[in-house]
Parts: sequence; structure tokens; C-alpha cells
Amino acid sequence: MQLAVYSLRMATRVGIVGASGFTGAELLRLLAGHPDLEVVLATGDSQAGTTVASLYPSLAGAYPSLEFAPYVDGLADEHGLDLVFCGLPHGTSQEIVPGLLNGTRVVVDLGADFRLKDADLYSGWYGHEHTVPGLLAEAVYGLPELFREELATAKLIATPGCYVTTATLALAPLLAAGLLETTGIVVDAASGVSGAGRAAKPTNAFNAVDENFVAYGMLNHRHTPEIEQNLTHVAGRDVQVLFTPHLAPMNRGILATCYARPTQAATTESLRQVLHAAYDAEPFVFVRHEPPSTKATLGSQSVHVTAYADPRTGWVVAMAALDNLTKGASGGALQSANIALGLGETTGLPIAGLYP
Amino acid sequence: MQLAVYSLRMATRVGIVGASGFTGAELLRLLAGHPDLEVVLATGDSQAGTTVASLYPSLAGAYPSLEFAPYVDGLADEHGLDLVFCGLPHGTSQEIVPGLLNGTRVVVDLGADFRLKDADLYSGWYGHEHTVPGLLAEAVYGLPELFREELATAKLIATPGCYVTTATLALAPLLAAGLLETTGIVVDAASGVSGAGRAAKPTNAFNAVDENFVAYGMLNHRHTPEIEQNLTHVAGRDVQVLFTPHLAPMNRGILATCYARPTQAATTESLRQVLHAAYDAEPFVFVRHEPPSTKATLGSQSVHVTAYADPRTGWVVAMAALDNLTKGASGGALQSANIALGLGETTGLPIAGLYP
Amino acid sequence: MQLAVYSLRMATRVGIVGASGFTGAELLRLLAGHPDLEVVLATGDSQAGTTVASLYPSLAGAYPSLEFAPYVDGLADEHGLDLVFCGLPHGTSQEIVPGLLNGTRVVVDLGADFRLKDADLYSGWYGHEHTVPGLLAEAVYGLPELFREELATAKLIATPGCYVTTATLALAPLLAAGLLETTGIVVDAASGVSGAGRAAKPTNAFNAVDENFVAYGMLNHRHTPEIEQNLTHVAGRDVQVLFTPHLAPMNRGILATCYARPTQAATTESLRQVLHAAYDAEPFVFVRHEPPSTKATLGSQSVHVTAYADPRTGWVVAMAALDNLTKGASGGALQSANIALGLGETTGLPIAGLYP
Amino acid sequence: MQLAVYSLRMATRVGIVGASGFTGAELLRLLAGHPDLEVVLATGDSQAGTTVASLYPSLAGAYPSLEFAPYVDGLADEHGLDLVFCGLPHGTSQEIVPGLLNGTRVVVDLGADFRLKDADLYSGWYGHEHTVPGLLAEAVYGLPELFREELATAKLIATPGCYVTTATLALAPLLAAGLLETTGIVVDAASGVSGAGRAAKPTNAFNAVDENFVAYGMLNHRHTPEIEQNLTHVAGRDVQVLFTPHLAPMNRGILATCYARPTQAATTESLRQVLHAAYDAEPFVFVRHEPPSTKATLGSQSVHVTAYADPRTGWVVAMAALDNLTKGASGGALQSANIALGLGETTGLPIAGLYP
Repeated sequence: MQLAVYSLRMATRVGIVGASGFTGAELLRLLAGHPDLEVVLATGDSQAGTTVASLYPSLAGAYPSLEFAPYVDGLADEHGLDLVFCGLPHGTSQEIVPGLLNGTRVVVDLGADFRLKDADLYSGWYGHEHTVPGLLAEAVYGLPELFREELATAKLIATPGCYVTTATLALAPLLAAGLLETTGIVVDAASGVSGAGRAAKPTNAFNAVDENFVAYGMLNHRHTPEIEQNLTHVAGRDVQVLFTPHLAPMNRGILATCYARPTQAATTESLRQVLHAAYDAEPFVFVRHEPPSTKATLGSQSVHVTAYADPRTGWVVAMAALDNLTKGASGGALQSANIALGLGETTGLPIAGLYP
Repeated sequence: MQLAVYSLRMATRVGIVGASGFTGAELLRLLAGHPDLEVVLATGDSQAGTTVASLYPSLAGAYPSLEFAPYVDGLADEHGLDLVFCGLPHGTSQEIVPGLLNGTRVVVDLGADFRLKDADLYSGWYGHEHTVPGLLAEAVYGLPELFREELATAKLIATPGCYVTTATLALAPLLAAGLLETTGIVVDAASGVSGAGRAAKPTNAFNAVDENFVAYGMLNHRHTPEIEQNLTHVAGRDVQVLFTPHLAPMNRGILATCYARPTQAATTESLRQVLHAAYDAEPFVFVRHEPPSTKATLGSQSVHVTAYADPRTGWVVAMAALDNLTKGASGGALQSANIALGLGETTGLPIAGLYP
Repeated sequence: MQLAVYSLRMATRVGIVGASGFTGAELLRLLAGHPDLEVVLATGDSQAGTTVASLYPSLAGAYPSLEFAPYVDGLADEHGLDLVFCGLPHGTSQEIVPGLLNGTRVVVDLGADFRLKDADLYSGWYGHEHTVPGLLAEAVYGLPELFREELATAKLIATPGCYVTTATLALAPLLAAGLLETTGIVVDAASGVSGAGRAAKPTNAFNAVDENFVAYGMLNHRHTPEIEQNLTHVAGRDVQVLFTPHLAPMNRGILATCYARPTQAATTESLRQVLHAAYDAEPFVFVRHEPPSTKATLGSQSVHVTAYADPRTGWVVAMAALDNLTKGASGGALQSANIALGLGETTGLPIAGLYP
Repeated sequence: MQLAVYSLRMATRVGIVGASGFTGAELLRLLAGHPDLEVVLATGDSQAGTTVASLYPSLAGAYPSLEFAPYVDGLADEHGLDLVFCGLPHGTSQEIVPGLLNGTRVVVDLGADFRLKDADLYSGWYGHEHTVPGLLAEAVYGLPELFREELATAKLIATPGCYVTTATLALAPLLAAGLLETTGIVVDAASGVSGAGRAAKPTNAFNAVDENFVAYGMLNHRHTPEIEQNLTHVAGRDVQVLFTPHLAPMNRGILATCYARPTQAATTESLRQVLHAAYDAEPFVFVRHEPPSTKATLGSQSVHVTAYADPRTGWVVAMAALDNLTKGASGGALQSANIALGLGETTGLPIAGLYP
């Protein structure tokens, strides 16, 4: 129940560049229910001329006539866009974001181009030099739980990777409180297959995914340095993690099960008190007694977290679950955009998940 | 995008009787995003004292402290309820609805008790006499596409069965136009397992459902007379159908594939024109060129319909897909309630589905 | 339990042409447990040089070193093959089968090239002229339940389509007994996605299939004339069917729910007696009281069938379930090959399904 | 392909006590294809009088008339059983095994009663005193990869827990070689839901499991001491592990992803050489380059293992995948029984998995 009082105002004009992928479709789903933002442009070069309704029948009712347009320079000006979301492959956003920044109020990138602060780290993990390294410092990392204040004045926002949001929200309060050793951390995580995107590949075919559970990206997944960057930021010293992602036979959802050594005597209760202190005022992060379940967050912006201390082996286990396409991507981008535009932070973001 | 202009007003107070089942959970999900309706009571005798958040972690953020209460007589008065949804097993609603009608503005029943207009038909299919047959005439059938006008002044609303809504929306315009023979109709349908409810049974265990496709309720499913009642209503003469439901290995969604003989020469094009004429002004029913897909409607109020005429065999095939818990149950109930309360008919009802 | 008494003998040498697809993988799975047949060659042009174990890790233990070879003319002679299975796309087998027939004892085609007896029907449904129409009469249709005697001396075997086997086994005994009208028959069926093959396509991506149920091939699926050919054969007069396939979110399995009008008074009991008379001596077809479930046949050669007569609407409903890759494709091919080679008909064919 | 030469012999008579659960059904599936073992008795008190075919339609063809019988003392003698499998809940087997041992050649228990060698450990983890602690030393642990020699003369065999087999096969060779620290080991694993058994519970309902990934049994899962017992055995010193099981939305399959610290410089290559040395002569364990996939083992006895050394963080990651009901339970029991009875160790055990 939301008792709403709105005054009449002009809708903010929104464009989505690279809208034909899953993050684009999720943005369109969320924006269909957002009272203040109006989608006036959706580009998708490979789908140019196709209607949104034919590529995503789930959006047929909400966007009966919207067509994917080709990307052209100057589109922000041409369409009078106030807000642009970029859902392009890594390496591509950095080519067009400088131009977009000149023609609009806020640019929210959903890719990897502006997440890492260190251009050398970027080139090391992504295999090419960053073309606009000067923008890395300017970009605000789109995780409100860590950077809400900076987001309020952001012009360029870098939406975190889906695994990164999950692992960060599980571990950050405990590291910020100095409770965990900063080396030897393991992030063992599983994701639904939508994280792999819309392109048809043998590895995301139904027959390959269904009834299967398998690890991938062993030792070298690109979300690793981003997790470390966040955790180093909150810990105030270098944090190192081993990250092992797995593919689970489901559409959406990420669970991160994280293992770390405590720096001092810890109990399950003391760990959860730290989580409560960090999150009880957050609109979308909930500390749970039970192990977080991905399905509890399906289709919603909610994040469920918890932690355990094992008296027998000494390990601390911290866990978080969220929907990789909502809070882990498009919903995270929208929450940050709401903040940067001065709208209600939670506007248009479902708090209740789809169940069953 | 919805540009909203609201004036301040008191929220309508809502109670859900029998809220612990899946239709209750879906109502709670939808009402969490409804700006005009406030849930003040949720009963569930078997779960009394349990929090909503523990039974449905997906609702933890939206209802952090709501507990299932036991049902007690007079609760509508006691809690000042304007609107009551009843999600009780068939045979149970009829015991309490008369009392509820005295204490509140609108009662929306989600069960089977007030769907059939003929008390003898009810007792024949449900195995016991109806205790308040006099209310059957008063109850308005909660399918806005057929009874929008009556719903505007309804005090008691009977929400259709999920299969019934699906089959009715596929066939009704064609029968109303006199294009189909009224006997020999086959409704072959498949549903996700949430239609079977929350109670754990061997037949809805994951290992029984996953990787399985199977028919059930052969020849005698209770939605049969209700489909016939609707189609008879629009056809103006007795309609008879054979209904075969199947269980598909998925959570939500119903597809009805309906076969009928044409009364006159028909083409796929002519059939679709009739569907367009019936539905183009409807907010949630969309006529599609492609076969309707359940996933296109997941989590939304949308219904996708289409029809084909086969020149080779003479058959007409009419199809509809929807989400059995949203448009097929709780969303249907809410759409009707919106109408009866004079609220915007589409308020709080997602038009965009969850994809992927 | 099989109490086996074998004498020493030379293994029959088997080649699979077009082995890299799903029917090839299923053949390799079954042949791994066949005591009399030895796979000495598996071709797959697009995978030439790849090991079977890397493309199908499920076969790593059974075929640790087998590599897909390129197809070359004369391979049957070169490798001394006694038996060749062809798993090539339609239109391709007919190019090479004549050559193979000269170099080996038995050729079993798993594609569509030799299923239809009428070359004009073939060209009408497949869009090109048949290049060796003279072989159509020679080819024996690989459905032992209908053509066991002919298979015993077959040199060229055409394995039925998966939907065709299912619908034929459901309806054939009833039509052979003259119990059903031969027009107005509806075959409404659902299949797991493995029927669409190994190639990655947007329509068989996990995110497109999972939680989805949808019809396809409306009015014009190519299995239609093949179903009609079989049923016409047993009925002794032209049979016409409308066939509507659906895609269910599962790996394997087909259920056909078939609707027909009776020619005379029929009861559920009388229909089942006919089924029992037809199938009680069959090794793999079982008449069931309960609606057949695809999962009951998973990974096995078993077929479950049943029938109902509806006294209210007059419809007869006949149903069959099987595993589309086992009995519906590779297992069917192997059963026919066993017969043609004079081996035990059931050898190497699992009768028990994988459950749960 | 197996070129088989058998001489005529009497089948070994087999009884399954507690056959109505999933491990019983899997035993029946495997035994249906075993040439030397004949099932003459299957007990299941809660299902007594029910046919196997009605409870498990997948077994209808293999066991058309077998009924579950009630358990009665002396059944081994009465039915002349050579081999008895016990699939009873923990705490129950120990009541009847002493009696069975007197009447039959080999007893294979699939439950937990005879796995732990230390009766105090048993009572600590299972909450009651062991009633026949003297048998714990006599019982041979049914993991041929570790105890093949002892199994050859075993009379009582304790089949390992499913997670235990998985974790043990991943880690044992590395610990036996002294390559890993014996504390701080993490076993993070995921299983399909069949591991939870046949009883219908809210937690194994389709709607609870599908599209969900969640941990359970945090810090205290009963397979923990059993993993430690095995690893301590091979390491020659106390090994301690933290074990975190997860439930994945699939029927079958377990993947264990294990983290440990190396005792000396290790490379991925050096670790795999150790695995190859341990497993290359094993009939069912395969060392893979790629991360093991549960689906590669579906329905088969195969186990896929691998290991990685991470130069950046120092962690060793060892992984294994298998089918929890086949190698992880009933297939493991049958492999051990084959050894104890002097049959071919691999007889009746599928090496090729079901794919897709």
C-alpha cells in the first residue's frame, strides 16, 4: 500500500541505448510502472525496425507501438532526453558516453566501462585500453547502500555487476566493521541464466541448462576486481577474494555464499547486529534469520542478507540473494537514477517478489 | 510510463480472509503497489500468529510486521473494512459471505461458491447443497470483459476460475458473433502448478512435476460448467465443451487451445477481426499474430489471444494465455474490485510481464 | 532382471552418420549398453575432429576417445559397417542412402526422407522433389507395433517422427477397430524442447523455454501427413487430423491428447479393451488407467497409452506418452534395427524410466 | 558396446527393504537391467499392497505385478534372499540389520546407521545411542574408490551419503598426497531436490523449489562428520571441513566445489596429475579439463572431477559432480554389492548419462 500524493508535473524523458537485451527489457518493464519517467526512445542496432512487442511479447501491452531505433549521434539532443540508460557491451559505452553527457542530465551505464576506478585494472581484465580514463573518477558507482550521497549529484553513474552487488552487500558491513580478515575470502555464487544475456549460445540452450549445475569462469571472472574494489573501499585496506560463479537452472536470481575468517571472536548474533545496523534503514535490504532464497527476491528490488559464525571451524559465512536483472542490473540502475534526478528513491521499484 | 495526478484521500481499508494461500500471497503482492488500497487484515487460520514475511519471504519487505490473524465473526466491522477478499476453499465462503456483506462495501470471493448461477448445477458438481442460493443471482461474475457494467455497482463479486477466464476470453467473441457451433467444442489447456495451491501433496512435489507433462481431471473438472455458463451467456444458446486440463512443469501460466467447428466460412483473418473488435478497447487483452505464450503474461494482468481457421480440416482454433494467479485469480479479483469501488480499473495491476 | 545366456560372437559393426545431434547422442547412449552392437564410426561434419566426450560430457566414460569424423563416400565399405544409422537433416539422407545400401546390411534413417510413401506428398510438405522416389516403396516404416513382420527383412528403415509415433500409438488400435470417425480428429500434443535439436536458437534458449508453454507450427506441422498416412493405413480409409504441437518447458517427453468422434456407442472400458488387445503382447507399450505422464517414460523405450469416452459430450479422448528421443527417435530406430538384424528386439533398450 | 559372454547361472535373489522411497525406486530401475540379480521382494510398510507400477509408473514395464510387501522378521530366510538392500530412515536399519545378517549373504544399507565408525560421533550427530555399536567396525564403507579390497569380503556394507561421496572423491587424492592443509577446508555443494526424498513437504513443492536457489542445513548438516571421517582416513590426520549444502532447482545431481589451502606450491596441472593417478584406472571416475557438470552424470554411475590452483589467492579448488541417486546412493550401493558378491563390478551400472 502506498498512499500517494503527486502534483502535476512534466514527465522526465528517458532514452535507452542498447535496449534490446535483457537489461533493456527489464528497464522497460520497470519504467512501464514508473509515474515520473517516460520512455521516448529505445535503440537496438541489431533489432532496428523491430517492435518491442514482437521481440518481447511480455511488453506488448505496455509498449504497443514502440520500435527499436538505430543509434545515431546526437540522439539525446534530438529527442530532448533528460536521462539515458546505456545497455551496451563493455568497451562500447565508453565510445558514446562522453557525447551523451553533453546532451542530457544523467547517464546511467549498465555495462562494465565505468565501474573500475583504475584504468590499468580495467585494461588488465578487459584486454584493451580505456579510451576515456578521465571519466572514471567522475563516474559514481551506482550502489546506493555505499554511495547514496555521491549519487545525489551524479551525472554519470556506473551500475555494478550483478554478482558484485550481491557479494558486496553480503560482506561490506562486516568488513567495514573490521570483523573479517581481508585475505582468504571466498565468494561462491550461483546465478540464473539470464545473466548471460539474450544471444542464443549452446551454453544457454534449455537442454544445456535445465537439470544442470556447473561452475564457470574459474579463477578469472571479471567481476572479481570489482568485488575487491568495493570491499577495499569499505575495509580501508586491500581486500582479496576468490570468486567462483556457478550457473543454476533458473531464469533469474543470484545467491552469494561468502566465506571469511573473523578477526576476533564472532557469533552469529553479533554478525547480524552489524548487518541490522547497516541495513535496517535501507529501503530494499533485509536481514533474515533464514538462509536467503533467490526466489524471495524474484522480480523485485529486494535483497535478503544474513550471516553465520561457525564455532567449530571458525568460519564466518555471509550470504545475500537478489534478482540479477532487477536489483542486480536494471532496478539498481533505476534506483540510482531516481536519486540522481531527485525523485523518490523507491519509485517504480517493486518491493514484493513474484511467488510462487 | 504513467503520468499520475492524485489528490490526497483516505486509503480504502482492505481485509483478506484466507490470505495464506497462493491467491492471498498474490493479492498481497499486488496490493503492495496499489496506491489506494491498504491491507489492514489478513486472516489464515492454519497460519494464525505466523508473520506474512516468514511464510512468504517474497513479501518480507512489503509487510515487515503483518501477521496472519484467525478468522472471527464481525471482523469487517471491527477493522472498519471497506473491501474484503475471500480466498477460502469452496463451500466455506458461502458460510461467511452473508455476514461480511453486512459489514463492508464490497466482498470479492476468489473461490467457486458464487460463480455458478444455478444452485442445482452447483450441488451437482460440488457435491453439497448451496447454503445461500439466494445470493447467486446477486453475485456479479468478476470478468470485466463480459460484465463491466454490472461490476460498477456490485456488492458481491465472484472471481472466475483461472481456466475459465482463459477459455472464455479465447472463445467468447467468436461465439457471441455466432461464428462457432455450440456443441463439440474442445478446450485443451495446460497450467503451471501454482493452480493446485500451497498445500504439499505428492502430485505437486518438484520431483513429480519437473520434466513432466500430464493430463488430470479427465472429463470431470469443475471448471467445465463455469466455462459453459459463460459461453452460453454470450452465445445466447446452450454451449457444451469438453475440457481437458494438463499440468505443465512451470510455476504460473495457463494456455487454452480451443477447437470448434465454424458455422460459416471463416478465415484466420476474419476471426481475428472479431477478436480485435472485442478487445482493442480492453486494457489487458491483446490480440496477437503469434501463438500466445504463457511467459509473455508472467506476473502481469495481460491476456494474449489469437485464432486460426484451418482450410484443410475446417477446424477453428482459438487460443488464450494468461497468468493463472494474476489475471486468472488475484489480479482478476482486484480489477473487479477497482471497478466496484470506482477506482481506476487498471490501478495496481502490472501490464508488463516478467521476462526472461 | 534379465537372466542372460550369450554365446561368443562377433560384434556387429555400427556407424552413425550425422552423429553430433541429439538423436546421435541418444543412439550413442543406448549403444553404450548394447551387448551386440559396436560403434566404430560417428560422423559429424560440423564437429569433425571434436571428441564425442567434449561435445557430450555425458558420454565421456563410454567413449573416451571416439572423435566425430567427416562424412566421406564409401565409408560403409571402408569401415566394414553392418549397420548404419543416418541422423541427417531432411533432404540430405536421400543423397547418400542409395550408396550406403550397397555397402552395408541395414540402413536406418532417423530423418523424414523415407517416411512418406507418396513422393508428391513429400514434395508438397517438404518443398523439394524427392531424388530417389523409387526407394520410398522399399523403405520399411520403423514402427514395430505396426510393421514388425516387414521389419524382419528390411534393408532400409524409416524411423517415424516423434509426434507421429505418439499419436499413432494412441489412435491406431481404435481406428483399426473401426471405432472412430476418420475426419474431425484433433491431435493436441506437447513436447520437450530436445525435439528442436542441438542448434542454439532464440526459441530454444533457456530463458525463452523455461516457465513457458506455447503452441507452434500452427496448422502446418510436417508430422501431419505422416500421422495421417499411418492412421489411414490401419483404418483402411482416408484419415484426416488437425495437429497442434506445443512446446513444454522440459528436456524430453511427448504427450499426445487426441480427440475423435466415435462411430458407435463406446465406453472408457470398451476402448481400453481394444488397447489391451493391441498392446498386451508388445514389449514396450503399456495400457494405463491413469492419464499417461511423460515422466513415466523418461529415458526409456516405454510408451504409456489410455483412452476415455465422455458420455456427456460424446468425445473419445485417446492419449499416449513417450520419450521423444528414446522410443520417439533413437530407441525406435534401435528397436527396428534389432528386428532387422535378427537380434533380440528389446536388447539395449531400457524399459524402466528415470524417476524422479 | 559390451561384448558379453555369459554362462548359464542361477540369478541371485534380491530383496529391498524400504523400497518405496527414491533410493528404492532407483535400485529397482538399475536392477531391471542387471543380468545377474533378480528382485523377489520389495517392502514398504506405508505402501504395503500398492503395486510398484502405480507408485512409480516409470517402473510399470519392468515390474508389472510386483507389490510392496510389509516388512516381517525372517523375510530373508523366507524368500531365500542372497542380497538385501535396506533403504530405511536412519535409526531404523540398526534394528533389523543384525537379523538380516543371519539370513543372507550380503546386506547393503543405504542409510546413515553404519557409516560412522565412532558410536559417540553417531549419537552426537543423530541424537540417539546406536543400538548395535559392535557392528560399526564390521561394516565396510561402500566407496570402492577407497575400500575396494575390503568390500570384496564384506557382509555388511554402509553406502555413503550422497554429498559425502561427492566431496570425498573431489578431495581424497589431494589430501592423501599431503597437498592440502587439513583445516579450513570448505565444501560448498548444491544438490537436486530428490535428495530430500519422496515425502511431500512444503520445502520440496515445485513452487518452492523451481526458480529457487537456497542454502540449508547451515553449519550442522549430518554429512559433515562423514566427510571428515573419510578425509581423515586418507590424510592420516584429523581433517576438518565446513560444509554448506544448497538446494538447486533440479531433480538430480550434486556438485561439490571445495576450497582448501595448499601445503606446498601447487599448479592446476600438478593437482590434476594427482587426480589422474588416483582415478584413471577407476571404471566410473573421470578427470575433466572443464568444470564438472551435474548433467553430464545424469542417470549414470559416472563421476566427473577436476581441480584448480589459483596463483593469485593461493586457493586450491577441487570439484566433483555425480548423480545423487545413482552413484550417490543406489548405484553406489549396487557397485559395492557387485564387488561383495564377486560379480562384475560395473554390471548393471550405466556409464553413459542421459542428455539432453
